[in-house]
Amino acid sequence: PSKPLAKLRGVARQAIKLAKDDPRRLIHSLKVGLTVTLVSLLYYLQPLYNNLGASAMWAVMTVVVVFEFSVGGTIGKCLNRGLATLAAAALALGANHLSILSGGGNEPYVIGLFVFVQAVAMSFVRFFPKVKAKYDYGMLIFILTFSLVSISGLRMNEVIKLAQARLVTIVIGASTCLAVCILIYPVWAGEDLHNYVAKNISQLGNFLEGHMDQCFQTSCDARIEITKPSISNLNSILVDSKGREETLANLAGWEPGHGQFMFRHPWKQYLKIGSLTRQCACRLEPINGFLNSNIQLQAPQEIQCTIQEAFSESRKALKELAWAIETMTKPSSANPHIANLKTASANIKILLRSSIWGDESDSLQIIPIAAVM
Amino acid sequence: PSKPLAKLRGVARQAIKLAKDDPRRLIHSLKVGLTVTLVSLLYYLQPLYNNLGASAMWAVMTVVVVFEFSVGGTIGKCLNRGLATLAAAALALGANHLSILSGGGNEPYVIGLFVFVQAVAMSFVRFFPKVKAKYDYGMLIFILTFSLVSISGLRMNEVIKLAQARLVTIVIGASTCLAVCILIYPVWAGEDLHNYVAKNISQLGNFLEGHMDQCFQTSCDARIEITKPSISNLNSILVDSKGREETLANLAGWEPGHGQFMFRHPWKQYLKIGSLTRQCACRLEPINGFLNSNIQLQAPQEIQCTIQEAFSESRKALKELAWAIETMTKPSSANPHIANLKTASANIKILLRSSIWGDESDSLQIIPIAAVM
Repeated sequence: PSKPLAKLRGVARQAIKLAKDDPRRLIHSLKVGLTVTLVSLLYYLQPLYNNLGASAMWAVMTVVVVFEFSVGGTIGKCLNRGLATLAAAALALGANHLSILSGGGNEPYVIGLFVFVQAVAMSFVRFFPKVKAKYDYGMLIFILTFSLVSISGLRMNEVIKLAQARLVTIVIGASTCLAVCILIYPVWAGEDLHNYVAKNISQLGNFLEGHMDQCFQTSCDARIEITKPSISNLNSILVDSKGREETLANLAGWEPGHGQFMFRHPWKQYLKIGSLTRQCACRLEPINGFLNSNIQLQAPQEIQCTIQEAFSESRKALKELAWAIETMTKPSSANPHIANLKTASANIKILLRSSIWGDESDSLQIIPIAAVM
Repeated sequence: PSKPLAKLRGVARQAIKLAKDDPRRLIHSLKVGLTVTLVSLLYYLQPLYNNLGASAMWAVMTVVVVFEFSVGGTIGKCLNRGLATLAAAALALGANHLSILSGGGNEPYVIGLFVFVQAVAMSFVRFFPKVKAKYDYGMLIFILTFSLVSISGLRMNEVIKLAQARLVTIVIGASTCLAVCILIYPVWAGEDLHNYVAKNISQLGNFLEGHMDQCFQTSCDARIEITKPSISNLNSILVDSKGREETLANLAGWEPGHGQFMFRHPWKQYLKIGSLTRQCACRLEPINGFLNSNIQLQAPQEIQCTIQEAFSESRKALKELAWAIETMTKPSSANPHIANLKTASANIKILLRSSIWGDESDSLQIIPIAAVM
């Protein structure tokens, strides 16, 4: 019985770590609990129940399905769900009307045809990349509502009353959701994107910093400190960042102005910065391979020192750029570093052309950093 | 009126392109339409309707929500939905029972507490990476079903009958879905993953091939053909592949044996190959930067030819490996190429050590390919 206990302890440890890494997760869970319980009140309150009846469950359903981690996600899902329900219900009622006009017992076939055509068309539209990114959920709800409303029309004459009750409960559910999501500790996707992009650039700086002392044993210049190697990996920037940035930018697109972002920000520019960061990471990655191969940098002192300077300057420039993005200031403080870096890389080129030397694959890979910046 | 018309034509062109690129998309849409229409029959058939009543709409809902492009996705959603509904309904009935035992008009508070605690706990569990990857949908359905069943219990004494009808309709919807999804032109995520991984490796080969004639004007060896440059980009491998591979591997995990995959394949190995492919792509990427810089490769003829051989051999080896994965054979035909490549890269190293030369940043970046393989 100690093995499941150990496993349980492992899960608990992981849960604590998740909550510590980002306390907003815990807050989000509490917010969901609060909203679901609030909406359940609809069932307890006699007058409301009498009006809405069993439709009240749509409110609970809306809350559970629509409540997302970020404000942008929640607003996007609410709008998708609301608009798709409205459009699909209206079209389905129209289809119903048409089928009644066709008359003569043909109604089920006409309705069946409408449902089929609509489901095929909407399922195909979901493959459009732009639709998939922002309106996938809306398309799903459209198919669902259209099918339900149009086939219900065959049986019940109260379709409109049903649709009304459904709409009211969806509005109640969605507005409770939005209120809780925005008013209590909101999580803005835009802010997340902003910090994430800045963090990635500063991680490039950390990477250079962490590898300084592995590449060079001695410092040529008192101004250049060689710090302890930090465990930093470019892998996450290279591989995970694009998907994450695109998701965040999509979500941020739904968000109104907020916080430092009082005016709507150009989210696409963030994607461009992110893409440049990835290119830069790809240029830096070979340094890792060089270090793993355990070849000591054997080059004349002069070259070593120039490379060291380029390392150090690009590190500083990257850090300044990250800081500038984070604080939303003009990145003028990075300019002198970039100028120094360019001089250093020009020097490296001259040295390489002029002198004879051995196995040194690393130096030229630093140059592209200057180009990226 | 010509502008919206032009836009419409653009959309139509895009739709045709989407269908041509992957005709399975069109088939999938038709399958969804068929299934939704089939399930709608429940409404038309008098005897079935009398038994299930308005609950029949749950069948339509299940189909729309659960039907995914790949078999793995559909099975995964079905299992998630089915098991989560069962578990949540059972627990909610238990909670109801407890609240009745507490008695004395306290029922709503007890139920409210249960709903709150459950919603908080499950929302938090969704943040666990493993849960998020495979069971996110199940968690959502759990919160939904638990809340609905437990609060319905306050009002109706027919909860069990309701739950039963819901379960039956979900089973009907899910099984129709599965039948159509698996029996009519199934799309296997496992097969997609298999082909995708092989395609990426062969794209690395294409990349080398496409850049051969840009790097070298003349062929040193009649055996090495220099082909036209094909437009091939490593960007998609570097950036998009990880997310896609992980999604496919997750979906494939739900699938039973099928086609060439009669026995369950070790999907995690595919992820490892994918990760090596990405590393390799990152090593090759600098070649692009070298070409963009418009520097002609100025090196002694001897070195040029050795590099050319390494290029050519790694291209062949990559192609052979891709072919071996695709056809599921032992990649023994790649071995001689790898051996040649190792010789060539060793030669390059020797030549580099021995001779004096200028700006040649490219050669050493080819070597790591050998290491990757």
